[in-house]
Amino acid sequence: MARKTLLILALANLLIGLAAADWNILNQKWKNARGDSLKNYCESWRINVELHNIREFEVVPQECVHCIKKYMTSSQYKADSERAIEEVTLYLSSCCSLGGDGQDAWIFDVDDTLISTIPYFKKHGFGGEKLNSTSLEAWMKESKAPALDHTLKLFHQIKDNGVKIFLISSRSETLRSPTVDNLIKVGYHGWASLILRGLDDEYMQVQQYKSQVRKRLVDQGYRIWGIIGDQWSSLKGLPDAKRTFKLPNSIYYLS
Amino acid sequence: MARKTLLILALANLLIGLAAADWNILNQKWKNARGDSLKNYCESWRINVELHNIREFEVVPQECVHCIKKYMTSSQYKADSERAIEEVTLYLSSCCSLGGDGQDAWIFDVDDTLISTIPYFKKHGFGGEKLNSTSLEAWMKESKAPALDHTLKLFHQIKDNGVKIFLISSRSETLRSPTVDNLIKVGYHGWASLILRGLDDEYMQVQQYKSQVRKRLVDQGYRIWGIIGDQWSSLKGLPDAKRTFKLPNSIYYLS
Repeated sequence: MARKTLLILALANLLIGLAAADWNILNQKWKNARGDSLKNYCESWRINVELHNIREFEVVPQECVHCIKKYMTSSQYKADSERAIEEVTLYLSSCCSLGGDGQDAWIFDVDDTLISTIPYFKKHGFGGEKLNSTSLEAWMKESKAPALDHTLKLFHQIKDNGVKIFLISSRSETLRSPTVDNLIKVGYHGWASLILRGLDDEYMQVQQYKSQVRKRLVDQGYRIWGIIGDQWSSLKGLPDAKRTFKLPNSIYYLS
Repeated sequence: MARKTLLILALANLLIGLAAADWNILNQKWKNARGDSLKNYCESWRINVELHNIREFEVVPQECVHCIKKYMTSSQYKADSERAIEEVTLYLSSCCSLGGDGQDAWIFDVDDTLISTIPYFKKHGFGGEKLNSTSLEAWMKESKAPALDHTLKLFHQIKDNGVKIFLISSRSETLRSPTVDNLIKVGYHGWASLILRGLDDEYMQVQQYKSQVRKRLVDQGYRIWGIIGDQWSSLKGLPDAKRTFKLPNSIYYLS
């Protein structure tokens, strides 16, 4: 049995090695119409997703899956996300005259902001396959998503400053219990409200749904000092927050 | 005389070589509090500028000037800009029911959108020195800025589709003549209006000034289909365009 496992592992390693070698060969030979190398091309795709110039993509371009996987599991992705969070801390140190009246609010996305879906995408084509919501939701029900450590630390800093935290997610209401379990298990607690998509919200695009939730908060007298999310649809639309912070994510797009 | 020139060139090359070697040594030894390498750190700085998480910077961090210079003069910068422009073409192919009534409008930034200031910054510390407007304006008066070739091509495509082109720049009104000369010299012609900052506009931040100009256009009945700019202050604020496209630029920040 152990020998069989070893054999499988060796074979798997061989295949991964071959895939990487293939990609290197592909990278050397590949040129697009403009004469870009594959590395230039995929990096351009990624930066233009982050700049919100490329929108509504359903899958990562097949030839860039390797490159995007490399980035999203790299020290660079970690450094980029951590730098974004540091900028939030810097902003918070001088931005906000907190009222102490319980009406100061901060908004977080859930997936790829508080907790990471990367373990799921590692097993499901890393953005190169069209999103299968059934399979993704089955994974979410396992409540195994790890925390983004730097966001976790920030979450508690904001909470300890007396700011109410609202988690606005595009996850379905049916996932409430495993979502709460997951969040608590990795260290999140003390948020004011976790807002998930009910049946009525499913007919709306994410940006419209999240804007409506903010509208309700503003109508209740909340001052929204900031939003942190990995999707532009979490940050755009009216009413807006005083500042927004975008975390990198080029695996999927929610509009 | 020729020998003297050669000697100076050799010395200059030696100094450039030493600077690059210094940077390589620095890169190997450098770690910040989070343990990032210098490469990770500077790349994070750059991506967070593009994501609009880092704002209001006056200079590129000293230790990252080499890295930013490398990027802004690289094939990657060129590929990133070209990809952004390709996304505009893609958008234009299906977005807009052009009215044929002369009320369709498109907005371009001037500097680092139509023409490049990189030759200036190559000689002036590449973002590592605080912006010296007197020296920059003196350079602008020479009308020597080269075109961004891919934007030039797009400019004429949009114009040929019967869309009126408005150039909204934060350059001062006093630079009108050399700006027009420069634009024409590198191939731009046929725009509807070039809007520069008058004395009154100098008291406003760029975002407010550009929003006010858009407000005037909308009041005149124009439909603004899109904006292309290298600064978020050209793209944000109300009234907004149907779509905006951000070109990369991490040398300077206009708020």
